[in-house]
Amino acid sequence: MCKIFYILTLVMSIVGGAAAQDSPITIVIHGGAGAMAPGRYTQEQEAAFKAKLTEALELGYSVLDGGGTALDAIQAAITTMEDSPLFNAGKGAVFTAEGKNELDASIMDGATKNAGAITGATRVKNPIKLARAVMENSKHVMFAGAGAESFAKSQGLELVPRSYFHTDERWNAYKRALKAEEAEKESALPHDYKYGTVGAVALDRNGNLAAGTSTGGMTLKRFGRVGDAPIIGAGTFADNASCAVSATGHGEYFIRLTIARDICAQVEYAGKTVADAANDVIHHRLQDLGGDGGVIVLGADGDYAMTFNTAGMFRGVKREGESVSVAIYEN
Amino acid sequence: MCKIFYILTLVMSIVGGAAAQDSPITIVIHGGAGAMAPGRYTQEQEAAFKAKLTEALELGYSVLDGGGTALDAIQAAITTMEDSPLFNAGKGAVFTAEGKNELDASIMDGATKNAGAITGATRVKNPIKLARAVMENSKHVMFAGAGAESFAKSQGLELVPRSYFHTDERWNAYKRALKAEEAEKESALPHDYKYGTVGAVALDRNGNLAAGTSTGGMTLKRFGRVGDAPIIGAGTFADNASCAVSATGHGEYFIRLTIARDICAQVEYAGKTVADAANDVIHHRLQDLGGDGGVIVLGADGDYAMTFNTAGMFRGVKREGESVSVAIYEN
Repeated sequence: MCKIFYILTLVMSIVGGAAAQDSPITIVIHGGAGAMAPGRYTQEQEAAFKAKLTEALELGYSVLDGGGTALDAIQAAITTMEDSPLFNAGKGAVFTAEGKNELDASIMDGATKNAGAITGATRVKNPIKLARAVMENSKHVMFAGAGAESFAKSQGLELVPRSYFHTDERWNAYKRALKAEEAEKESALPHDYKYGTVGAVALDRNGNLAAGTSTGGMTLKRFGRVGDAPIIGAGTFADNASCAVSATGHGEYFIRLTIARDICAQVEYAGKTVADAANDVIHHRLQDLGGDGGVIVLGADGDYAMTFNTAGMFRGVKREGESVSVAIYEN
Repeated sequence: MCKIFYILTLVMSIVGGAAAQDSPITIVIHGGAGAMAPGRYTQEQEAAFKAKLTEALELGYSVLDGGGTALDAIQAAITTMEDSPLFNAGKGAVFTAEGKNELDASIMDGATKNAGAITGATRVKNPIKLARAVMENSKHVMFAGAGAESFAKSQGLELVPRSYFHTDERWNAYKRALKAEEAEKESALPHDYKYGTVGAVALDRNGNLAAGTSTGGMTLKRFGRVGDAPIIGAGTFADNASCAVSATGHGEYFIRLTIARDICAQVEYAGKTVADAANDVIHHRLQDLGGDGGVIVLGADGDYAMTFNTAGMFRGVKREGESVSVAIYEN
């Protein structure tokens, strides 16, 4: 009897392993969720967003298609979005209450459960590369502020003058937000708020998952506020045993609900599909607590979900045998 | 048929509510895990540790016994340990590579899933009070570095000169560690390493859970390293729907495994007892990854566990109808 069990287990694990390796290589990305109802953008603006999402997807997919790792794929996609002023990450970062740009990012390798994260960087051009360097070249997971920057320097990562992060659009949004805050004597988020965080999840030919997230945080953030993007388990999580998640939204809620980990825990322990787990977490738990935002989720079996409770989410997917698909609004 | 279901559900929810309220009020604390085998401390030192653990437990329990909240109880217990030079938190914080003290803490309310956390504070006397102020008096969950300190000032919290955190014992340990690192040209943790983080979890008369953790971090930490103590889901988690956890150990592993959330997820989704969940996470997942440390866990039903894979963990529990129990070593 025991022998039969043993053989059965062995067969199952081989089948399981083969299934993972046979899963279609896939990359899913987001460029932030928020009050992006149809009509918010001109056709030209929509086209520009979609073109940049497509570029990021194609670059990331080409890494997977060439036999590269999920980690390299998400880094390629995220770096593309960081370098664009269209998204609130890297080049397009929003301004803090003090009129500065403070960048957060994190990355996780589903194969090893290794992770890296940084918060409060001000001069590193690509925060996702710094998070990866923390993961691979230090014994630590997370560095904050000036220390993170010193580490970036020691790693020879590209640093830029602070003025690199200045874009007129974000600066004007900062000035408007400052005025609104002074008028209302409070710092509530405006109704048209858009969480412009970027992120990616991928599954490579070896059946390995990875996830990464990068952001400029919240306009007018104060007191060195840390959101969910650099928090492993909140904004980012990846484990080959369950799934990979990158989140965007009102970060405080995502931290309290450990959104990324909770979705993968429901897959791991409750046997849910990634879509069912994401639905429960975004449309019930997050919604019930009063938070908003979205997630991209990719299972080890190649199943994926792009789930949000906001009017829209910049998002896209490219998987083996299918063409690139990008979208902004709900439908 | 539907009506019967409805009545049944109603009865079950009333029974469930009553059960929670009938659970014995309980507080569980830890003062760090590590290479604390019998013989490491003199009898006098052991007595001093046990006396301080007992004092913290009794103070926290008295809050619960007087009808106070789980949050107030854990804050009282943690503050007591922060004010003692015996533990690596507050007064007894270890030194960073630069010879400074940088303090991290977090707190979570299981009833509301509200949370507060700070990292890299240098002048606030009681980091746990600052974490609580972030939770209750800001719209945010986590503040880092100088910003956290500015917020502390704006809240009128007690600030102390940096010299307050200087204790000869930690300074000498820092000097020894520095010398060892120079000799070995690496910064591996010494074999006798002790993670002196402190933490508490409690269940109050209303059936509400809370968890909190406070630490000075890792001796010789660099680059603004953030450990698991201020990370919701890693070092601290509380949710009335499952359990409350405070962790201590090699923080990087605790972040990667989202230890506190994983234990509560196993309770919530896999129907495990807190002891079984803690065993799986500490003795299998953490152990397999090569990490060490421990947790205290308290379920909404009053079940608790104190689980570690190190030689010892400073720990204790006081529950209704039972006397205070404190321990250091494995048995």
